[in-house]
Amino acid sequence: MPDAEELIRVLEAVHDEKCAVSRADVSDSYEEKMSYQNKFLNRKTVAGTTGSPLHQASSVANGTSTASGGYQTRENNNAVSPVENGIDRMGLQRKSSRAYERGDGLDERMGSSRKYSLTQAISNGSSLGQNSSGPNSAGLQDGAPELDYSQPASALQGPNFHLRRTQSQRTIERSPAALQRVGTLTTKETLTPSFAADKQFFPTTFPQIDDRYLRLDYANQDYLSKMLHSDLLPKGSPEVTREFMSTLVTLLLNYVEMQNDRTSRVLEFRHPKQLEQIVDIDVPDEESPSNLYQILLDCQQALQYQVRSGHPRFFNQISTGLDMVSLAGEWLTATTNSNMFTYEVSPVFVLIEKAVLQKMRELVGWPTGDGIFAPGGSISTLYAIHLARHRKFPLCKTKGVYALTKRPIIFTSAHCHYSIPQAAAVMGLGTDSVVEIPVDEKGRMDIDKLEEQIMACLERGDEPMLINATCGTTVLGAFDPIMPIADLCEKYDIWLHADAAWGGGVLVSRKHRKLMNGIERANSVTWNPHKMLGAHLQCSAVLIREPNQLFSCNNMSADYLFQQDKHYNVEYDTGDKAIQCGRKNDVFKLWLMWRAKGTLGFERQVNGLFELRDHLVRRLNEFEDFELILPEPECTNVCFWYVPPSCANMVGNRRYERLGRITAIIKARMMDRGNLMVGYQPLDDRPNFFRMLFSNAASTNEDVDFMLEEIVRIGHEL
Amino acid sequence: MPDAEELIRVLEAVHDEKCAVSRADVSDSYEEKMSYQNKFLNRKTVAGTTGSPLHQASSVANGTSTASGGYQTRENNNAVSPVENGIDRMGLQRKSSRAYERGDGLDERMGSSRKYSLTQAISNGSSLGQNSSGPNSAGLQDGAPELDYSQPASALQGPNFHLRRTQSQRTIERSPAALQRVGTLTTKETLTPSFAADKQFFPTTFPQIDDRYLRLDYANQDYLSKMLHSDLLPKGSPEVTREFMSTLVTLLLNYVEMQNDRTSRVLEFRHPKQLEQIVDIDVPDEESPSNLYQILLDCQQALQYQVRSGHPRFFNQISTGLDMVSLAGEWLTATTNSNMFTYEVSPVFVLIEKAVLQKMRELVGWPTGDGIFAPGGSISTLYAIHLARHRKFPLCKTKGVYALTKRPIIFTSAHCHYSIPQAAAVMGLGTDSVVEIPVDEKGRMDIDKLEEQIMACLERGDEPMLINATCGTTVLGAFDPIMPIADLCEKYDIWLHADAAWGGGVLVSRKHRKLMNGIERANSVTWNPHKMLGAHLQCSAVLIREPNQLFSCNNMSADYLFQQDKHYNVEYDTGDKAIQCGRKNDVFKLWLMWRAKGTLGFERQVNGLFELRDHLVRRLNEFEDFELILPEPECTNVCFWYVPPSCANMVGNRRYERLGRITAIIKARMMDRGNLMVGYQPLDDRPNFFRMLFSNAASTNEDVDFMLEEIVRIGHEL
Repeated sequence: MPDAEELIRVLEAVHDEKCAVSRADVSDSYEEKMSYQNKFLNRKTVAGTTGSPLHQASSVANGTSTASGGYQTRENNNAVSPVENGIDRMGLQRKSSRAYERGDGLDERMGSSRKYSLTQAISNGSSLGQNSSGPNSAGLQDGAPELDYSQPASALQGPNFHLRRTQSQRTIERSPAALQRVGTLTTKETLTPSFAADKQFFPTTFPQIDDRYLRLDYANQDYLSKMLHSDLLPKGSPEVTREFMSTLVTLLLNYVEMQNDRTSRVLEFRHPKQLEQIVDIDVPDEESPSNLYQILLDCQQALQYQVRSGHPRFFNQISTGLDMVSLAGEWLTATTNSNMFTYEVSPVFVLIEKAVLQKMRELVGWPTGDGIFAPGGSISTLYAIHLARHRKFPLCKTKGVYALTKRPIIFTSAHCHYSIPQAAAVMGLGTDSVVEIPVDEKGRMDIDKLEEQIMACLERGDEPMLINATCGTTVLGAFDPIMPIADLCEKYDIWLHADAAWGGGVLVSRKHRKLMNGIERANSVTWNPHKMLGAHLQCSAVLIREPNQLFSCNNMSADYLFQQDKHYNVEYDTGDKAIQCGRKNDVFKLWLMWRAKGTLGFERQVNGLFELRDHLVRRLNEFEDFELILPEPECTNVCFWYVPPSCANMVGNRRYERLGRITAIIKARMMDRGNLMVGYQPLDDRPNFFRMLFSNAASTNEDVDFMLEEIVRIGHEL
Repeated sequence: MPDAEELIRVLEAVHDEKCAVSRADVSDSYEEKMSYQNKFLNRKTVAGTTGSPLHQASSVANGTSTASGGYQTRENNNAVSPVENGIDRMGLQRKSSRAYERGDGLDERMGSSRKYSLTQAISNGSSLGQNSSGPNSAGLQDGAPELDYSQPASALQGPNFHLRRTQSQRTIERSPAALQRVGTLTTKETLTPSFAADKQFFPTTFPQIDDRYLRLDYANQDYLSKMLHSDLLPKGSPEVTREFMSTLVTLLLNYVEMQNDRTSRVLEFRHPKQLEQIVDIDVPDEESPSNLYQILLDCQQALQYQVRSGHPRFFNQISTGLDMVSLAGEWLTATTNSNMFTYEVSPVFVLIEKAVLQKMRELVGWPTGDGIFAPGGSISTLYAIHLARHRKFPLCKTKGVYALTKRPIIFTSAHCHYSIPQAAAVMGLGTDSVVEIPVDEKGRMDIDKLEEQIMACLERGDEPMLINATCGTTVLGAFDPIMPIADLCEKYDIWLHADAAWGGGVLVSRKHRKLMNGIERANSVTWNPHKMLGAHLQCSAVLIREPNQLFSCNNMSADYLFQQDKHYNVEYDTGDKAIQCGRKNDVFKLWLMWRAKGTLGFERQVNGLFELRDHLVRRLNEFEDFELILPEPECTNVCFWYVPPSCANMVGNRRYERLGRITAIIKARMMDRGNLMVGYQPLDDRPNFFRMLFSNAASTNEDVDFMLEEIVRIGHEL
């Protein structure tokens, strides 16, 4: 297989170059930079000797350079050894010593007679979703002209480049003279000299910026160009305010429409130093440096380069999507700028929070209880662990961990979210207090091992304090079996926390809530509606089975803030239950979604995500170009490797090392192309693999097909 | 002084009744409710025996009743002893045993010949702000008809009550039949039978709801009534989406305009159980229970009863105001629904966060450093204390507090924010690890006492870990003197944290930043731009003097989330610096404000707040109706008692006990009237007093005058 060998060598070399470049990108000492460049050159020479035509294509796409330095970095970044960071940070070499020992994947694949080659199909010009995704995607990737940064700067001043302004232009614009000629603002982009000198560090071609939706050539440009922030309410006029906000809303709704147009890209990737040159993020000192039209340009610029996490082909993270009712809720929340700590200032929102928490507890299976919305799952889980400690060691609140006669231990699966050890570190228990229990082949906690560890803990004289059952692990989407864990919790008097930040969404689905059978036996649950239910980030709740726990644990008797002699019933105040003081309203958007959809609407939404998963699993089994990590995933996570034809016949360690390297390279290329985003990561002894995730209600089967085709297409082009 | 005596007795009785009512409001057992009612009746009889005409007026305003129960509470609230809660929770009796010993106030006031009576002036029909606040406020409070809940329900169905719907109506509307006749939705309010039976528990009159701004009689009502959430993007149409969002924006901008109209109220107060009857907060199970017009009604309902924290006369909290550029930023942030943990998904926002943190550090006086935006000041401060512990005891991260050979101690002033002991509790240090240092007469930490305590700590063999210098205390607005504290920190090798959550805003003002002289010597600073700078909640940063500290303290090596082999420089990723995983974008709005105003614009804004303070202090000195707590406040907090003519000649404990009680009663009446909101609280041995706060850029001197007049007016009417 000399071809495959060579491909891998080329890919590795290209990848190493890129990382060296990225590294140079922030190092600020001249010597260090040169050392990177030398390495880069050496590497390049090695790669160049292969003479493969593939090399040519890759190096163009990923940045070629023999250049010298000359640009100024903005701040003193932490200087570290280039060897340590340029290479080791990549994780490639690191991982190779511990490759994934598995031989069955190949045999399984080869033993199946019903598999087809998607690579072959794409080479022949056919596609999975001929009707829906085909023309659109083709239009995007083939039709869009490439922007060549090696052209002279003047060539970039075409009609498509009026969105961005350079640092130097801003400086001129902000001068007193410029402020007098508002309305004549030039918005053409030119490359600054410093960028021109540096561009060799970066890829030279990107797809041309798509500005069909984000143009700002509205009729009121002249009007807004004459206005400053001081013309807005409260001290300015309602008319200017309406004009400004309405124009912004038009821009924002154009963004939403763009994001839902599959011929638009998911992102316009630029490397950090590149982007710093392109966008103007300067934080100015001058008063009123920008008129209101310029402020809109600032907004436009951010939207242009922001990743469209609501795009139907954004599968990169657990929180995706853009639900319009949730957005309406967020806009209203922002408009009221409220604080959840007292009924006094947030009467409606406090009642709504109470009602939504009650509804969520009902779905868990509790008639009463307690709970609070917290800024994200990590803090929700911190609440729960803090509460468990308070229940077992109430003295800890005043005396600290010193007062404990026994060391409290937290049990969790090896695949748990890192917020568990994080909480242990913050809480002064130390990460060593977290005992990680091995997982079975599906990523679920091994119950026998769990009980062994509990007994070992008791033998040591430590106190088993909490077991965390992860409901939907981050990578594999595994659900720890709650029933047997709850049995152990009862047997040994241990607090059962369910980290259902991700998986909690299945509770609204009569079909899938069996994944969390026994959840009503938990003492506390973390559930982030900003994940599977599609509410806006941040929307996370910690739910507690017993009432009145949070107050006892967290109140600090701050009577000077939460007066007890108010003229209304202060039990509605939430401030004394929280570890925050001021607390943002995270619940209104979720409530509004619930009003619009009902629990049954949420059920339909969640079931739809699982149907997308089923479609993807079917497709992955259908084609020989992929290898599934888990044949039957529990949640909507689907993990797989892309297997290029050149690796098809490889076996053992070498096969998986290669697949892992190719995964990272394809992801990099995917970001440059911008049509799609899928996450990847290593896990245990498995090298990098793709993790598809369905949490975006916008995605369809055609988007899944597009994703598979695009991966194959990139692999094919490498 | 029999009149004053009697007034107080009546006020107390009325207040007690109210609390008993509030209490009954949530108790759910019939026996308990009856016991409240009996107490209520007894109390009433006592009050009734006074025969004072004042009693009559008060009891009408605050709710009279001899009624029986009969309503259904929604959930099982925590049952507590009625005696403990009905009376002791009020804090009136509690505080009286520990009254404020001070005799100088009266003498000082009586010795001053330049003081005038505002009470007299108002009785005579004159006002402080004849031109601006006079007519408006008069129009509001005298012109608005009162809504009498004792009228039959049908009387409430006038044109002004089409905003709210009852539970029972919702139930009908949500039936399948109702879903077919969308568009014919009735929005008239009727009182439900259960509310009619209960109304005697609550005040019977409130100012009539002001619906000039929040009517929803738009032309597209029929169109939106036929649409459901599923007609919106992503799966629905862009047209429906635009129509829905634009209508919402009209409503929101009307709200903003209302909030800036001084003839509109700050709030429409209702007691919790009342509000639960008026608004419909039901969380439904049925799919698509609401059409899009109903969703807008839900929004309208929330806006109607939400406190307008941006109203120029909302002085109740430290975070107030509604900056339109910040709002634009929040709307954009919500539209992009981004997550700050990686450059990969938030490229522009990550760069912006980096730039803004750098700017904030520059203002502190640091050329480099570290920092992160956190969800509120309490969590920011938790970051700082966690970092201080990590620096001194790096083993604690893995081994926990057990590994420490010495007990770390935190020093802070007695007037610090409760987030300091809160952090100690969460971090397993225990609140006993926090040593509270007495304050001087202005509320600033006493440096001699501080050094005494440090030495005592060393003698005990404990480790002085951190000194927290509060820059702007919550109540008095005091700034702990940083220079001498920094000297002690250097002398004893202690981490210096500055909790400038509130006061940090003065750093942008060349005139006032001297309040924080020496801030550059701190190791870490909490600074909440959502306070003095007027950014939206939440916007809080923790700034660190040394670079790269947060990563070392908080990274959990979660390579499966923060891969090190990405194709861009992963040092731009922030996930490993945070104790959160997903993290909301809190910085864009602040950056956009900075673009619009520049540091100099912020300076002008902050200076304006201090000018408002100066105006208020002048006024308070001008009139004999008030007594200042601190003659020369440092920050924009101004604390004072209202002194009714009946108490003018009282002295000593009795005087201040009475002033404290009157403060709470006036606040209650103020909320019912809804024209104004000012906070109050006790502090140390001082009973309740008003705390005026300037953080709202919308407020003017006329609003300050209105506040004083309104307090006198309420006091006069009691």
